[in-house]
Amino acid sequence: MRRKEYEEAKSRAIEYLKKANIVITERERDSIEVTDYGLNMLDKIGLQILVYINTERVCAKELILFPRQTCPEHKHPTINGDPGKEETFRCRWGKVYLYVPGEPTKNPKAIIPEEKRPYFTVWHEIELNPGEQYTLPPNTLHWFQAGDDGAIVSEFSTTSRDEFDIFTDPYIKRFSVIEDE
Amino acid sequence: MRRKEYEEAKSRAIEYLKKANIVITERERDSIEVTDYGLNMLDKIGLQILVYINTERVCAKELILFPRQTCPEHKHPTINGDPGKEETFRCRWGKVYLYVPGEPTKNPKAIIPEEKRPYFTVWHEIELNPGEQYTLPPNTLHWFQAGDDGAIVSEFSTTSRDEFDIFTDPYIKRFSVIEDE
Repeated sequence: MRRKEYEEAKSRAIEYLKKANIVITERERDSIEVTDYGLNMLDKIGLQILVYINTERVCAKELILFPRQTCPEHKHPTINGDPGKEETFRCRWGKVYLYVPGEPTKNPKAIIPEEKRPYFTVWHEIELNPGEQYTLPPNTLHWFQAGDDGAIVSEFSTTSRDEFDIFTDPYIKRFSVIEDE
Repeated sequence: MRRKEYEEAKSRAIEYLKKANIVITERERDSIEVTDYGLNMLDKIGLQILVYINTERVCAKELILFPRQTCPEHKHPTINGDPGKEETFRCRWGKVYLYVPGEPTKNPKAIIPEEKRPYFTVWHEIELNPGEQYTLPPNTLHWFQAGDDGAIVSEFSTTSRDEFDIFTDPYIKRFSVIEDE
């Protein structure tokens, strides 16, 4: 990802938080992470993340998604006998379609680029509107896409150890390289 | 606490959440807990609590405080070898004064009824404004009071097991009895 694209996405994420009346500090503004998962299609597959707290026991974040932006399919496995990350997604603003294992939803609302279809394998749709939430057990495949206006999702979870996440798409690199032009 | 007082505090808490643009479901509205800690001075010592999620690993809540309302001093001890609850308090709206062990603050902002003074023993003040947060280690005495406009505080923590909380004030009963008139 180019530095310019990164910074633009960060500024846009800050605007979304403002729209949702979520107050953050100057330092938090600077700390917002933008990832395109190394796929170079940030508007389609990517995520903006603000970590409030991540200790050895608890993690809380805001996930900011632009219209139709997708967090790609992944799971949080057991690590050295510790059960994987348990996550609750709570929609704060906008709308998000969450996909988990189960009966595939007929006519799901998410739109996925054709070439990336093979890497989205769970299609049981859960629509989350503001105030609605869903708790995902550890080691469970999932992905989500914002609706037409974007979304802000609070994530309440056990410790985040993103480096252990397992993505379905083998082309994904969780940690974006930012290229200065 | 009388049923009427309980219901009024619940309605008022819902108004505060609206003011802060925090969207909750109908079911969550019904689930808001009001506690006066059995002290019968809800406007001074009491709390309104909305639990979003409380699993074996993670808990997230909104704490709603009316102007100058106080959550009394307590700590979360080790239980059967499990370290006590670890809490992050994040101010979302209004202002809150949090008190923890450490150098007592000169001229602290909180106002405590004279007869309850002996049960407030830690006086190191941390002022939290919207977007500011503080993480408390387990088994640490703490208490907090809202400023003149009240406050909404998000709590991100490990599992809540309120029945094990240790309060400094021996008159406290954590679980309020609601009396129908």
